[in-house]
Amino acid sequence: MTQIAFIGLGIMGLPMATNLVRAGYDVRGFNRSPGATEKLALAGGVADSSIAAAVSSADVIITMLPDSPDVEAVVLGNDGVLAAARSGALLIDMSSIAPATARAVAAAAAAVGVRALDAPVSGGEQGAIDGALSIMVGGSAADVEAARPVLQVLGSTIVHVGASGSGQLVKAANQLIVAGTIELVAEALTFLDAYDVDLEPAVEVLAGGLAGNRILDRKAGGMIRHELQPGFRIDLHHKDLGIVLDSAREAGVVIPVGALVAQLMASARAQGYGDLDHSALILGVEQLSGRSRS
Amino acid sequence: MTQIAFIGLGIMGLPMATNLVRAGYDVRGFNRSPGATEKLALAGGVADSSIAAAVSSADVIITMLPDSPDVEAVVLGNDGVLAAARSGALLIDMSSIAPATARAVAAAAAAVGVRALDAPVSGGEQGAIDGALSIMVGGSAADVEAARPVLQVLGSTIVHVGASGSGQLVKAANQLIVAGTIELVAEALTFLDAYDVDLEPAVEVLAGGLAGNRILDRKAGGMIRHELQPGFRIDLHHKDLGIVLDSAREAGVVIPVGALVAQLMASARAQGYGDLDHSALILGVEQLSGRSRS
Amino acid sequence: MTQIAFIGLGIMGLPMATNLVRAGYDVRGFNRSPGATEKLALAGGVADSSIAAAVSSADVIITMLPDSPDVEAVVLGNDGVLAAARSGALLIDMSSIAPATARAVAAAAAAVGVRALDAPVSGGEQGAIDGALSIMVGGSAADVEAARPVLQVLGSTIVHVGASGSGQLVKAANQLIVAGTIELVAEALTFLDAYDVDLEPAVEVLAGGLAGNRILDRKAGGMIRHELQPGFRIDLHHKDLGIVLDSAREAGVVIPVGALVAQLMASARAQGYGDLDHSALILGVEQLSGRSRS
Amino acid sequence: MTQIAFIGLGIMGLPMATNLVRAGYDVRGFNRSPGATEKLALAGGVADSSIAAAVSSADVIITMLPDSPDVEAVVLGNDGVLAAARSGALLIDMSSIAPATARAVAAAAAAVGVRALDAPVSGGEQGAIDGALSIMVGGSAADVEAARPVLQVLGSTIVHVGASGSGQLVKAANQLIVAGTIELVAEALTFLDAYDVDLEPAVEVLAGGLAGNRILDRKAGGMIRHELQPGFRIDLHHKDLGIVLDSAREAGVVIPVGALVAQLMASARAQGYGDLDHSALILGVEQLSGRSRS
Repeated sequence: MTQIAFIGLGIMGLPMATNLVRAGYDVRGFNRSPGATEKLALAGGVADSSIAAAVSSADVIITMLPDSPDVEAVVLGNDGVLAAARSGALLIDMSSIAPATARAVAAAAAAVGVRALDAPVSGGEQGAIDGALSIMVGGSAADVEAARPVLQVLGSTIVHVGASGSGQLVKAANQLIVAGTIELVAEALTFLDAYDVDLEPAVEVLAGGLAGNRILDRKAGGMIRHELQPGFRIDLHHKDLGIVLDSAREAGVVIPVGALVAQLMASARAQGYGDLDHSALILGVEQLSGRSRS
Repeated sequence: MTQIAFIGLGIMGLPMATNLVRAGYDVRGFNRSPGATEKLALAGGVADSSIAAAVSSADVIITMLPDSPDVEAVVLGNDGVLAAARSGALLIDMSSIAPATARAVAAAAAAVGVRALDAPVSGGEQGAIDGALSIMVGGSAADVEAARPVLQVLGSTIVHVGASGSGQLVKAANQLIVAGTIELVAEALTFLDAYDVDLEPAVEVLAGGLAGNRILDRKAGGMIRHELQPGFRIDLHHKDLGIVLDSAREAGVVIPVGALVAQLMASARAQGYGDLDHSALILGVEQLSGRSRS
Repeated sequence: MTQIAFIGLGIMGLPMATNLVRAGYDVRGFNRSPGATEKLALAGGVADSSIAAAVSSADVIITMLPDSPDVEAVVLGNDGVLAAARSGALLIDMSSIAPATARAVAAAAAAVGVRALDAPVSGGEQGAIDGALSIMVGGSAADVEAARPVLQVLGSTIVHVGASGSGQLVKAANQLIVAGTIELVAEALTFLDAYDVDLEPAVEVLAGGLAGNRILDRKAGGMIRHELQPGFRIDLHHKDLGIVLDSAREAGVVIPVGALVAQLMASARAQGYGDLDHSALILGVEQLSGRSRS
Repeated sequence: MTQIAFIGLGIMGLPMATNLVRAGYDVRGFNRSPGATEKLALAGGVADSSIAAAVSSADVIITMLPDSPDVEAVVLGNDGVLAAARSGALLIDMSSIAPATARAVAAAAAAVGVRALDAPVSGGEQGAIDGALSIMVGGSAADVEAARPVLQVLGSTIVHVGASGSGQLVKAANQLIVAGTIELVAEALTFLDAYDVDLEPAVEVLAGGLAGNRILDRKAGGMIRHELQPGFRIDLHHKDLGIVLDSAREAGVVIPVGALVAQLMASARAQGYGDLDHSALILGVEQLSGRSRS
């Protein structure tokens, strides 16, 4: 039976690891704070107290961590994944991190005979619980096929998008489009509200045509009613847009709208909205327009 | 039987009027250039040679014209619709024009006892042919109900969004979101292409998550392959963004991303792409990034 | 002796007309509100009660009015300047208005044998009082030479910049650069303040190098201390940026930074700062950065 | 006699070190490529073959290097300045680097008893040759006073702007304003040219009013005539705007216009203009407006 090590049992990682247990895998988990591993044990996994213990006999190693420095520490560190993994193991990093870090991880893994994929996700906590994530995978085609049975437990859409780092690049592109679309919807709603247009039917008709998008479907109602609890936090989207801008700059790609949206996201954070849902961008448009609602 | 006058038998107007004939209405048509009225006559309508002839005994008058000055001339002019329409007639202007003009038309109509709706559409030529347009309607609730049987022949989604001018405002918001979304997708695709990510699977996974939108569904393939024939032309979208900017400015609504996208649309036009599809915004991103494909 | 009619005796016009009286010209003034003409009379001019009375025997007619519609009414109206002026008179419009209106005025003037210049100014109320305005003049070279003795009473810099409308275009360019420079200085000061850099010496060294500009020289101190009384009001600069954007759009010139600055100026106005000096753009940067000082 | 070590004898460093020799200082120079040290020796300095040799007995150590990684290597490296400098020496880093690196250098220096200033300059090669640089200095007041006699040989304006890192922050602010002003002038000139306004007199009158700035004084002529040889290169200004953006992001300061200008600078670089003067931003505006001159 395939043995899986799962490192990072947070809001996303714990339900993902649990789904793997339920699918019949032998799952050994590790988390830097111990409470989460106990929950995994209750669900039928094994709670390990070190990365080495979790990883050393694993066929597949999944990491699900907050940011690039965490992945660097956990995977590349002295007591990290690559120091303990056996040759031939398959490392699937599902964190959302810098593409450059993903490529560095892949190179370091190859140097010790470990195969590596970058496989960030979209779909949020609910998608993790439901095993319905969208997974964008970078790496070799053979490694993607080897990982597919495991990934199919976690997600409903698994797409191989290119070589190492490509998964992170597509995730970055995703975050660019999502942030920009929220801002566009925020500008449109504020515009319509200023003219006393009925917003609920306006959203309905906008969603039905070429302007249609998931933000109109899922977020516009909350934006209209100022129900802005997360969901996905401004702070995290701000981090992700930093990755977008750095990667675009590195490649010489010019993204004027993306750069402006990143400033507006930074503004939401600077004004204390970091813990609100990213749809709180509408607060900025209302403020700029002298239409803040208290 | 309800008698309908249809003024403006262009690419959109002719199939719309034809659908009304097929639905059993008595349709009298007028167009400034005569060829189009002959086509309507062949389809079973009546070709009139003046606005007055078409309008004088009509219960419902539909106008479908290119721009605000056309509507002002045709509706408000000396030999125009309001000079000839009978009291109690219902005027439905389905052109995409400035909201301020729509409000002026409604006021002038009221002064002569004509009821008026602004009812711009989205869905393009194919939507007009299929009777599947999305129609966003501004005016009184009673007038919208009176118009509904006629509008249901033309569109599959008919939504009353508020008082006079509201239909045009929602159309403006639609054009803001569409233009911005095209630009975002263009920036994302150029970014991914610079890193040699496989674009077709990337679009597939982007379309499946929170970044999902109609531009990814319908336009991204053409953008990738530089198949940029219209569809909806840059020149027309440039006109529409002028309406968006003027209306936002009038209401004191600040739309930083919308304003930047309008500059990029103006750039596409200034560089000679006015007759291409609006998805040709990708040419601008490629050029800015030194990645023009010749 | 040259007879001058001066129409528009506001904050700018009254000291300008007074300077012409002091220079020995026979000045007849008209203003729509009567108090201002009395002040001119006290200074030695003649107070007229109609445009026709002021204009009919004048050699030179100067107009100094708030906006394009005012110029259209005063110059082109039924009882306006061109209806009363004698053939061969020289009309100098020193208002800041749309270049298209300036061209229309010049064409209408030519049709009745009146020579016309557009000659907007910079330098503000103090420049008007001191006769030290900068004057940018559009029209024929011969007419500019004819006007020069009069203009030299009003300004210290008189520059012929091209054909009719060119004066207004240069004024528009001036307003674009001024607004953008204020925003740049505001962003720089907010940036430095966030790091506790000493702002007064920082401004000194910035002003001494390639970053040096008049805003650093004249406005930065007030921006640092939030002394934002006008000077030149946000409301007026907002009007002027509307002229910039419309004229750029008409010519197909793309001004991405100008368009963004116009949104930020519109935001200052929408938030109630219309009566503050245009250097109040710094309030917007501080707000976006969560650093508003109450 | 004060002994000065000068590390980094490039286009800027060599004339600066030469001026110090001429002022009577005992100057020992080191450069990674040896040709430059020979030139210093010809001018009367001492050519050293290692950092340690140059630095070990120096009272004042000046570094003038291209970028942050160079300063990190030369100052903080195993065989670097701090490893060899004697306690009590005064390190003046005159490179333009990241403020965060300047603070790290100051902290590392303090740990070994070396006093440190960050003192970047503006004024270019000519300013270095003429000893007429503007120098913005961060560090303690006492250290600035100690350095002042030396700095007065190199520059005509020496301003203490705050604690360690402040010099770099003011240099960053300088680069923000300069880049933005070039773009504003480029937009204004392209706008005026599209209307056939006479550009030379337009620049004259713009430079005389509130729009006046050093770019109009020194660069506009070259921009009009497309004389775009450097001067200060696009590549270097692109690097500097990266510092601006990173530092603003770190402090939560929102600079929407700065961010957009940085994209336009990146575009100039991506299109192959990296070796042209930064005033080549005008090529981008002309291209966006369909007005490229070949």
